[in-house]
Amino acid sequence: MRALQWHGPWDLRLVELDTPRAGPGQVRIAVAYCGICGSDLHEYADGPHAIPVDAPHPLSGRTAPLTLGHEFCGTVVEVGAGVTGLSLGDRVAVEPEYHCKQCAYCRSGSYNLCVSMGFAGLMGDGGMADFAVVPAYMLHRLPDEVSLEQAAVIEPAAVALHALRRAELRLGDTCAVFGLGPIGLLLISLAKLQGATTIVAVDVSRERLAAASHLGATHALDAGALDAPALCDALRDAAGGLGVDVSFEAAGLPATFEAAMQGLRKGGRVVMVGLMPHANFDAFRAVNDELTFTASVGYRHAYGDLLRIVGSGALDLTSIVTRIVSLDDAVAEGFDALLADRTQIKILVSPAKPPSAINA
Amino acid sequence: MRALQWHGPWDLRLVELDTPRAGPGQVRIAVAYCGICGSDLHEYADGPHAIPVDAPHPLSGRTAPLTLGHEFCGTVVEVGAGVTGLSLGDRVAVEPEYHCKQCAYCRSGSYNLCVSMGFAGLMGDGGMADFAVVPAYMLHRLPDEVSLEQAAVIEPAAVALHALRRAELRLGDTCAVFGLGPIGLLLISLAKLQGATTIVAVDVSRERLAAASHLGATHALDAGALDAPALCDALRDAAGGLGVDVSFEAAGLPATFEAAMQGLRKGGRVVMVGLMPHANFDAFRAVNDELTFTASVGYRHAYGDLLRIVGSGALDLTSIVTRIVSLDDAVAEGFDALLADRTQIKILVSPAKPPSAINA
Ligand SMILES: [Zn+2]
Ligand SMILES: [Zn+2]
Repeated sequence: MRALQWHGPWDLRLVELDTPRAGPGQVRIAVAYCGICGSDLHEYADGPHAIPVDAPHPLSGRTAPLTLGHEFCGTVVEVGAGVTGLSLGDRVAVEPEYHCKQCAYCRSGSYNLCVSMGFAGLMGDGGMADFAVVPAYMLHRLPDEVSLEQAAVIEPAAVALHALRRAELRLGDTCAVFGLGPIGLLLISLAKLQGATTIVAVDVSRERLAAASHLGATHALDAGALDAPALCDALRDAAGGLGVDVSFEAAGLPATFEAAMQGLRKGGRVVMVGLMPHANFDAFRAVNDELTFTASVGYRHAYGDLLRIVGSGALDLTSIVTRIVSLDDAVAEGFDALLADRTQIKILVSPAKPPSAINA
Repeated sequence: MRALQWHGPWDLRLVELDTPRAGPGQVRIAVAYCGICGSDLHEYADGPHAIPVDAPHPLSGRTAPLTLGHEFCGTVVEVGAGVTGLSLGDRVAVEPEYHCKQCAYCRSGSYNLCVSMGFAGLMGDGGMADFAVVPAYMLHRLPDEVSLEQAAVIEPAAVALHALRRAELRLGDTCAVFGLGPIGLLLISLAKLQGATTIVAVDVSRERLAAASHLGATHALDAGALDAPALCDALRDAAGGLGVDVSFEAAGLPATFEAAMQGLRKGGRVVMVGLMPHANFDAFRAVNDELTFTASVGYRHAYGDLLRIVGSGALDLTSIVTRIVSLDDAVAEGFDALLADRTQIKILVSPAKPPSAINA
């Protein structure tokens, strides 16, 4: 089978491998789609970050080179020994978080905080291949109403849903989303569904701001055209003068974290979704205005809910998909396109379709 | 009447004033006790911080010089026009937060975040006097079971209870309290009452650590005798290896905030109670370990609950009172003693008693 492997920075190789077999507790799927994530781009452009190169990951047993891609879905083609509840032909979405099921975090249900947490497609082989073998616990059967195209976007949507839950956003609240990558745009869709009355989108890209407005943002602020105080004023104005109840920091920049904090009303909350090395803040204001900063990483118990939401027709996840490419074209038309072109938001790789079928 | 007024740093004056009268909506009380707070010490040693010197506070209408003291209680001696529910002779605790009742924060119940928030005793006249006139909304009648000595400590206990609520500490959780001033010690008592299984007290004072152990701390760590990594290890060990669910930062120091964060388990929470100008943190760890930093300022809706808790006998607030002094002796035996002697925790000023009655 074909597999797109990470060998090092700027060194993704489409190689031919023996088709893997499903061992006990495992399932093999024929991959339908696999989205390219910002973290895949980071591994491509200046990795390794999460990819193990020295010691194998404790749960996957794998080191680089390995197959990239953690946003994937497909059809069950082999069921390993001891696996129940899945059958050949089942359409499934993959929840790619490896977790040990034994640590204190797993046992309390917070498996995204597992001491051995890892992602299939970063710490183990992922979905940019004709086939993928994963532990059965990662699979969620798709309702009939959910297409495989939709299912390919469940993973970033789970990141966004988990962040929304960490926000404790309530019906009628106001919020701002800083950084309109796929997660930021999905946050806007989900905040809209949850009844936020004011949703302020903030980015430096006009295309992203337009996309945010299309998805339900009530205000779009161009952070490149406003200095920090003007941005803060505009944000407070949008939220009735006081500031927003919740800011989502989805850009991973200390300056954005600062702006996300400045735009809050008293008692407000910043949800940190983006990764950044260090941050500092005005602790005097934070205490006097009783602010909260909370972080969100990965997701837990989100897939089932998302499949119901998407199945109900309330949320069209394909709205952020801007291109579908073949596995053969994944590097040039996928990775490189995302790095070069800000109008690209989410690109799916489709191993099942040859280039001719996609370009037609 | 006598009143202890702040005129400037190192300039507290016991002066003779006309006894104030209760205007409409106001009540005059004969002060029984008034505690000296850390913020009073700050105003004394290097104020003004909160005390208005240029423009009058919008709700109290007062500028310095004014009467210090916001932790006070007493007996109703005059009821102004339009006040209902209070009678001469009623014993009352004062909840000294001025608030406007009209801003968005007041209207949503978060009156501690009022845009015009101020404290009687800092932004208006307080309780270090023979009499105090306050708005009727500040008063809470004492149950028969609650003594005036207990009532004098309700105010800092309300700060601690509000911080505990901000912590969302659950029965069975583990916590650490950094900084064993009155608030830190009260937090230990309240965490114990709420069923925390592990309560780690951290301070540099052996006397304070001993007091914490007496109040229910399960572990006492001398931050002066341990370097930062050793302190973190000891804290994690105390909490079963992972770290605590909640850390209370009650010292107001960036280094303590850092330690409070380091001692958390994944998914844990720092509650910032102490004031500090700036803080910074390892945002990479904060996001990956899904930490929360939340702040707590003042209190709201806490007095009624505390009066029931104290009235039930479950909590003895006088356990942190180390001395009672007369109003005449308040500066020398109160303020100066607290600045000089770390074994002093909470000193109450008692205008109703002459020095001879206290020293007897
Ligand atoms: Zn685990
Ligand atoms: Zn107000």
